[in-house]
Amino acid sequence: MGRNQENTPLYDALDQFTASRPMSFHVPGHKNGSIFPYQSKGQFESLLPLDLTELSGLDDLHAPRGVIDEAQKLAAEFFRADASHFLVGGSTAGNLAMILSVCSPGDKMIVQRNSHKSIFNGLELAGAKPVFVAPEFNTASDRYIAPGTESMKLALYEHPEAKAVVLSYPDYFGKTFALREIIELIHEYDIPVLVDEAHGIHFSLDKAFPDSALVLGADAVVQSAHKMAPAMTMGAFLHTQSERISSRRVEHYLQIIQSSSPSYPIMASLDLARSFLAKLTLDDLRVILESADEVRDILDSSEFWNVSPGDDPLKITLHSKPGIPGEAIAELFEQEGVYPELATHNQLLLIHGLGPFKEMNRLKKAVSRVAAQLKNIPNHDIINTNNIFKERITELDLDYFSLKQHQPIQVPLRKAEGYIAAEAIIPYPPGIPFVLKGERITSSHIKIIEQFMQQGVTIQHRNIENGISVLR
Amino acid sequence: MGRNQENTPLYDALDQFTASRPMSFHVPGHKNGSIFPYQSKGQFESLLPLDLTELSGLDDLHAPRGVIDEAQKLAAEFFRADASHFLVGGSTAGNLAMILSVCSPGDKMIVQRNSHKSIFNGLELAGAKPVFVAPEFNTASDRYIAPGTESMKLALYEHPEAKAVVLSYPDYFGKTFALREIIELIHEYDIPVLVDEAHGIHFSLDKAFPDSALVLGADAVVQSAHKMAPAMTMGAFLHTQSERISSRRVEHYLQIIQSSSPSYPIMASLDLARSFLAKLTLDDLRVILESADEVRDILDSSEFWNVSPGDDPLKITLHSKPGIPGEAIAELFEQEGVYPELATHNQLLLIHGLGPFKEMNRLKKAVSRVAAQLKNIPNHDIINTNNIFKERITELDLDYFSLKQHQPIQVPLRKAEGYIAAEAIIPYPPGIPFVLKGERITSSHIKIIEQFMQQGVTIQHRNIENGISVLR
Ligand SMILES: Cc1ncc(COP(=O)(O)O)c(C=O)c1O
Ligand SMILES: Cc1ncc(COP(=O)(O)O)c(C=O)c1O
Repeated sequence: MGRNQENTPLYDALDQFTASRPMSFHVPGHKNGSIFPYQSKGQFESLLPLDLTELSGLDDLHAPRGVIDEAQKLAAEFFRADASHFLVGGSTAGNLAMILSVCSPGDKMIVQRNSHKSIFNGLELAGAKPVFVAPEFNTASDRYIAPGTESMKLALYEHPEAKAVVLSYPDYFGKTFALREIIELIHEYDIPVLVDEAHGIHFSLDKAFPDSALVLGADAVVQSAHKMAPAMTMGAFLHTQSERISSRRVEHYLQIIQSSSPSYPIMASLDLARSFLAKLTLDDLRVILESADEVRDILDSSEFWNVSPGDDPLKITLHSKPGIPGEAIAELFEQEGVYPELATHNQLLLIHGLGPFKEMNRLKKAVSRVAAQLKNIPNHDIINTNNIFKERITELDLDYFSLKQHQPIQVPLRKAEGYIAAEAIIPYPPGIPFVLKGERITSSHIKIIEQFMQQGVTIQHRNIENGISVLR
Repeated sequence: MGRNQENTPLYDALDQFTASRPMSFHVPGHKNGSIFPYQSKGQFESLLPLDLTELSGLDDLHAPRGVIDEAQKLAAEFFRADASHFLVGGSTAGNLAMILSVCSPGDKMIVQRNSHKSIFNGLELAGAKPVFVAPEFNTASDRYIAPGTESMKLALYEHPEAKAVVLSYPDYFGKTFALREIIELIHEYDIPVLVDEAHGIHFSLDKAFPDSALVLGADAVVQSAHKMAPAMTMGAFLHTQSERISSRRVEHYLQIIQSSSPSYPIMASLDLARSFLAKLTLDDLRVILESADEVRDILDSSEFWNVSPGDDPLKITLHSKPGIPGEAIAELFEQEGVYPELATHNQLLLIHGLGPFKEMNRLKKAVSRVAAQLKNIPNHDIINTNNIFKERITELDLDYFSLKQHQPIQVPLRKAEGYIAAEAIIPYPPGIPFVLKGERITSSHIKIIEQFMQQGVTIQHRNIENGISVLR
């Protein structure tokens, strides 16, 4: 590595700029924090002097030549990419730009079906013709993880003209899969692999974690820096490392999607977070992992759940015993001041940070109070969703642009057969689109959704009693 | 008004949440600020506990039902809209969503040619067929402001099937035009009017400023809250007030464009900024305008520029005397610690905030030092750009989707005749696209660009010596 990873050129430039007490006759309107609602000054005041704009010496994210360019080059070196782009619109912005940069209207894209909504949104914006590959059920973790190698082989064989393959790695719970093998398969077709690694920025640390998607050979990779690293929310990276990706196009779409006034505090926090990661020593990591183990031990002591092992030591997954809903456990934890990341019908995810947890005793008390209260919780039905994807590879029945031309109508579920879905139907669990926007609704879909609902599955974001949104 | 505009429900919810010292096992990775690079803790620490995620009680920007919904309703009431949406991606996000919500691929859109790049980007993303209306030169302010009423009449007459008209009001320098009259004209065709009011959020204050686009009848309006109000950078609003706009579509595109983890500090600053505006009394405004007048007086005392009057009393425009470049004046001001908003060849824009300026003496000294140094600056040629738009109404020669299919090549300017431009050619001054991406380059274009360059005009974002980017 040529550059000194302790450096934080963008943060330093902002820090120095403020030191000269500049007189602001520019935006933002808070004028270095001097004009701000008094009730909140205590919280905002010290950061606002860094909330600046493209002044001399502070560079320009959309045409970087100075401190932002240098900060991005430091990031590229650390993450082992050819180029790294600061994102101020989250992994969302990266996923949209990555997809738009390879996909023109009507282009085929092979896409993991259990992707984040920003991936579907990117496909819709680009006017893609997606080929969805269903994930396989993993009994060990009791969840759908990723498409298997065989499904991917089949998809490539049937659609070799695809402009890219879009994968997500790791999943929310830190679960990995045979990404290197799948990337090699895809590269045999000379197709670029775009990886949504929103939950895996710490995989870029040398030790202690699974390999990062960049190391495994992905062509473009998006990482949220606010999720597992200590950046401000909306801070993320888009990395590229391949001739298969046009940097001109990536930059073009980034300046389309992201504000022409990107937030300097968020960009500075990306610079600082990269340097923070780079400076973590093996000793630091040992302390962090010991802390995560201790948290895991504290959480392990209940008759109502198990702590299941995972690939990412910072992700702590509680697997609830049959009949005890994860959501109910989460609610009790919150009442005790412990805020988990998410809860499903049978799991609870807690994320440990990249620093030792400092309140073990408070946590211990909270856990025992939760366990005590769970004794009074009535048992729930067990939900089975492990066999919902009959077809491994599917395409849309109506393309995104035609979908947009029409005004959707609402029909009752039992009358929806034959209509095109105007919105995804996402049973929760498992939280994976069962019917996608643009797919034709079949009688078998309706039957399975009705079974889901009898089991107590909810349909995400929708009150399905009001009917579903379809096109004629 | 039914709601109490002093309330800040979103900020209050965040503030109360942090008071309980919650234990974070969720994103973001800085864990309420406890894990953060030490060198910058002093600046970030007090704000990071508010940098939260969609926890119980903190609502969800993309499906608001709680404190964000209430905060948006307060905003709608204050700005006199039917609905107001918090934006965390700047006016950029609002412009993109507003355009995408009315425009499908191939749809005609009537657009003011001197728009911000986010408007052109929105048209490109949507696959619009834009009809551009050239602005008229305003001799009083020595700038292009907006299309005249006659041009707009003609555009509507020739393209009555347009899905919307997109206007910008006021311009960067606070200049307004006959917006009400133009809106009424457009509404005769029942076409929605989308207004980029990025620079005019304070026009929503009752007194002292020109009328806001919402009051003048626009159907959808975007306002940056970070530019003229004291919100954090990237904080903005999208307002709608009409049956001509589908709220379902607007919301759909907002959740596409914006991060699934929107920044709570930015959203809280929107809540606070709205309340700040609502609480400004006539007395406060008097003090602010007196302060702006005093700044204007201090700046007026030079033989090298005039202070020209404008429509917005918070915008202070220095008009440099012939032969003295505005950029040179700006550089000298910066050396004295005074940072203007922008400089052109003949103008300098300074923005006064919504609070009294507190360093009049420091400013006075800076101004006299700048004037003293200007004596040594050699005179420059005078640039004339007041007659560049021969055609009032133009369309693209190649649509955006076809443009995307092809790989651009570089050709020297003098050989570019007949090619389609693959990027805009924006002479600066006046900073308005002279050739747009998708327009065919003519011999007359080339002649005028060559004249520009002899006059000392630069071509924005481009080193035109390397040729220009075109399609065959
Ligand atoms: C897998 C995945 N990808 C992308 C995103 C979007 O990231 P962001 O919220 O940073 O925009 C998320 C957010 O939760 C995610 O879980
Ligand atoms: C006229 C106009 N519209 C839109 C924008 C984009 O706003 P933002 O920077 O808040 O994304 C700008 C930014 O300068 C602008 O000047």
